[in-house]
Parts: sequence; C-alpha cells; structure tokens
Amino acid sequence: MTPISDPHFAERVRASFDKQNAMHLVKASLPVVEHGLTEIHVPHWSGIEQQHGFVHGGVVGMIADSAAGYAAMSMVPASASVLTVEYKMNLLAPADGEKLVARGQVVRPGRTLIVTKAEVFALKDGKETLCALMQQTIMVMQGKAEK
Amino acid sequence: MTPISDPHFAERVRASFDKQNAMHLVKASLPVVEHGLTEIHVPHWSGIEQQHGFVHGGVVGMIADSAAGYAAMSMVPASASVLTVEYKMNLLAPADGEKLVARGQVVRPGRTLIVTKAEVFALKDGKETLCALMQQTIMVMQGKAEK
Amino acid sequence: MTPISDPHFAERVRASFDKQNAMHLVKASLPVVEHGLTEIHVPHWSGIEQQHGFVHGGVVGMIADSAAGYAAMSMVPASASVLTVEYKMNLLAPADGEKLVARGQVVRPGRTLIVTKAEVFALKDGKETLCALMQQTIMVMQGKAEK
Amino acid sequence: MTPISDPHFAERVRASFDKQNAMHLVKASLPVVEHGLTEIHVPHWSGIEQQHGFVHGGVVGMIADSAAGYAAMSMVPASASVLTVEYKMNLLAPADGEKLVARGQVVRPGRTLIVTKAEVFALKDGKETLCALMQQTIMVMQGKAEK
Repeated sequence: MTPISDPHFAERVRASFDKQNAMHLVKASLPVVEHGLTEIHVPHWSGIEQQHGFVHGGVVGMIADSAAGYAAMSMVPASASVLTVEYKMNLLAPADGEKLVARGQVVRPGRTLIVTKAEVFALKDGKETLCALMQQTIMVMQGKAEK
Repeated sequence: MTPISDPHFAERVRASFDKQNAMHLVKASLPVVEHGLTEIHVPHWSGIEQQHGFVHGGVVGMIADSAAGYAAMSMVPASASVLTVEYKMNLLAPADGEKLVARGQVVRPGRTLIVTKAEVFALKDGKETLCALMQQTIMVMQGKAEK
Repeated sequence: MTPISDPHFAERVRASFDKQNAMHLVKASLPVVEHGLTEIHVPHWSGIEQQHGFVHGGVVGMIADSAAGYAAMSMVPASASVLTVEYKMNLLAPADGEKLVARGQVVRPGRTLIVTKAEVFALKDGKETLCALMQQTIMVMQGKAEK
Repeated sequence: MTPISDPHFAERVRASFDKQNAMHLVKASLPVVEHGLTEIHVPHWSGIEQQHGFVHGGVVGMIADSAAGYAAMSMVPASASVLTVEYKMNLLAPADGEKLVARGQVVRPGRTLIVTKAEVFALKDGKETLCALMQQTIMVMQGKAEK
C-alpha cells in the first residue's frame, strides 16, 4: 500500500469539503475519510428530486465525483491539491431510498494522475442498492496547496 | 434530419423540467428547446460554489447531463420517456463567470438508444469559455410516457 | 446471483470467439468462460507492439472490450446476442510483459442493457501489473441469436 | 489557434506511426497529418473482421485512439511525447464498408493534458456512415521526446 504522505489528510479533506457550498446546498455530509477512501452521504429530501420523486441523477453524479476526488486528495502531500480531469458514470438503478451513500476509492495513485472509482448506493428499508458506478481521473497539482 | 415525432415536444420537455426540484434548487432554467437541442442556464450564485469560488463541477455535470437528456427527449414520441444510461465528461477549465450555459445535442437518434453530447460554457465579461465536454448514452422507454 | 439462462453458454461464447478473425490476428485466446466472467489472453509478440516495444494500447482495448462483452454474452439466453454500446478505459501502466490477461466481468445484468467491467494485467517474471481498467455498456438483442 | 510549436510535427508523427507494428498488422495508414488533426485509414479485409463480417470494434477503437493521440502529438514540442490516459467510445453503427476512416482532432490543448475527440466513418459505395465517436484524454510528457 502507498505510504501516507500527510498524517493530517483527514483534517485537510474535511476543511476542503466544508468550504464547498454546493455540498451544503444538497445537504451532503462526509462521515468517512480514510487513506484512499471517503464516503459522502445525502439524505433523500424533496429539494434534490427529479420528476419521478427519485434523487436527481445530477446529484448522484455530484456526490460520486466528490467522494472519489476526496479519496484522491487524501493521498497527496499537504502541499498539493487535486482537480477532476474527467469521469464516466453508469446509472444502474433509480436513486430510490431514504439516503444515498457515495463511496469513493483510489484505484491507482500516481504523482501527476490518480485513477479512482465510486459506487453510489441507495438505502431503503435497511437494503442497499447499487445505483451508480463511476470511473474517474484526477490531476494532482504538486506545490499548489488549497488555501 | 430525423422527422419530428411529436409536434408538442417543447411543451413536454418543459413540463418535465419544471417537475425537477433539483434544477430549481440550483436555479437552473431551460430557455432553449429545439428538436434535438436544448440549453440549460445557471446564474453564478454562492450556493453552487466549490471551495475556490467557481461553480462546483457537480453542478456543471448536472446541467450537462440534463441538457443532453432533454435534447434526446425532444426527439422521442409523446408516448415515450428517456433515461440516462451513462455519460463521460471532461472538465476543461474552471467554471468561472457570471453564468453557465449547457448546450445539449443529439448526435445519433435511435429507437432504443440515443447518443448525445453536451458542452458547458462559462460567460464572463461577454466572453465564452468552454469548461466541460460530455458524451452521453440515453435509453428510450417506448410506451412509457412521463406522468 | 442471476440464474443461468443457457446451460450451454460456454460453447456459445467460444463459438462466437472462434469466428472473430481479428482475435486470431492478434493471437488472442479465450481460456476462461464462466457465467458472467471471461478471460482473454494474448502473448506478447512483435506484431502487436507500439513504438516503444510494449503491447499497443489498441490491442489492450480490443481484448478488454471483447472479454467484457463475452462476459455479458455468457448471461443472456441462447436466443439473444449482444452488442457493445460504449466503453471507457483508463490505461494505467505500459503493457509490458510476456503475456496480457484481460478479465471481463458483469457488474449488473439487465434485460436490455448489461454493465460490465474489465481489467487487463501484464504478466512479467511471475508478477501481475494492472495496466488497464474499463467500464462498459452492452446491449442485449433479444430474439436475435448469433448465426 | 494555438501556434505551431514544432514545424516538423508531421515528420515526427509519421516516424512514430511507422514504428507501430500493430498499425501495420491491421494494414492501417496515416494519409493526413495536420496541426491538431490526423486521419488513419484501414481497408476492410478479412483479417480484421468480427463474427458477422464487419470490422471488429476493437480495430475501430484502435484507430480512433491512435488518430486522436497523433492529433495531440502534432501539437506538442519536438522535445515532448504523448501517452493515452483514457478514452470513452460509443459504437454507433456496424463498421460496414470497403474502408474505415478515423479522424482525430484536438479539442483543447494544454501543457500537461490534451483533450481530443475522434470520429470513425465507414465508407461504402461512396457513402460515409459515422460508426464511432470517441472522447479522449492525452498526457504530455514534457522533455521526453520519442526515441
């Protein structure tokens, strides 16, 4: 496993997340930050629905992208920041449940590029349904820490 | 060019958009609905920002996905509905401007699958910058009109 | 797990593979066909190299696409065939080794669409290196068996 | 338009193509090399077919990937080389024709990353059919010229 390059990675990731107004807008939280893995949770509420009452695919994409991006950020030095280069996401099932959980993970870390994946699950009556699968490329900006 | 299968496509698309709470949440509007092409606009406001004060990439993805999806919906019969199967998006520049414009277009219509693309532009001081490029696959649900 | 809809899926998949001249051209073989999983192997030989002596990324994509497509084919009824709708592949490391192994797997089976993934490994001196990761969408043509 | 950083880009691109055995294996040629645009052509011959007698999707992907990658290479300094980071391709129609033409183009050049696209057309009885659409990310290796 890749060694931890910043022992304070979790604080750094949480501080960045807290500054994202768009995450607050959709009522997302970041309860899990591990080395190379994060989870973003969103409760189902009316403001994020699409026309059928499920959570909007755009919100699913938003939390998948962010969870995987923060998984990447957890593995870079404190002096670096990260940017999403691109991602590809398949929507597998309607986001139907009381809550969505996006789990982002680093697949392959690198000095300039990090490849990640994310899975988004809908939780309904104690059952998890995989509703989205994402593959993402992240760019590392060495020497450009987030302010 | 593919013939128009529903003369009331614009009303149908607008009615669907109006029912998407998540689009209202980010203050998105749908000023353009043509046959095979739509535009979604979002003003830059603090609620949709990421940590650097640009519009969050998740919101960029949300309007790209929806603009292209509605472009597809404009080409299906009134008795059908559409679903996003998957999309891939490259983020090309920070979403920096007073306003974002997502332009979705059908690349290849089909009975079961429609391939689309979207471009997202940031408008700043009268200048347009391409900030995202998306390629998307849409599934047509024949005989399943949106309620 | 999804029930096996065709007990003779392996014969059907192998028969299709045998008819693909392009697979023979690159000297690919299909040693593993399970329900929802296949493996395509290619020895490293000079005819499939790129300019640095590694296996060409196009050949890596070719076997990833086919391995995942055949994993999907293994799960459809004998009366159906499959088509690649699209795929996205990240190249993670040079395809450097004596042999490449593409492992394709079904992620989510469906009646009309099947989502799959593939990993391609390079084997060198007994060591496996992950050199590509793919996410793919397959369409099922019900009632259109391969001749 | 981006200025030409190497007046001998076409020779450099052609020299690289000539060293790709895999391109020779499928009988591909590179008749067009412009600044930010290339074309790779492949005649339809039995060795590159799939089971229905069309050109194999893997070969379509191979020439799309290479055409777009060489479009990127045409825009980098002579002291740099390029690598495919990832691509996403939709297959739109069977590759049915006497000849395939893959046209690769740079969408957005950058110092470290270049975003490109490719279209693959099948030519049959004087008619062009778009059979594949690709979106790709290329990494520039500054200071690492191809030998």
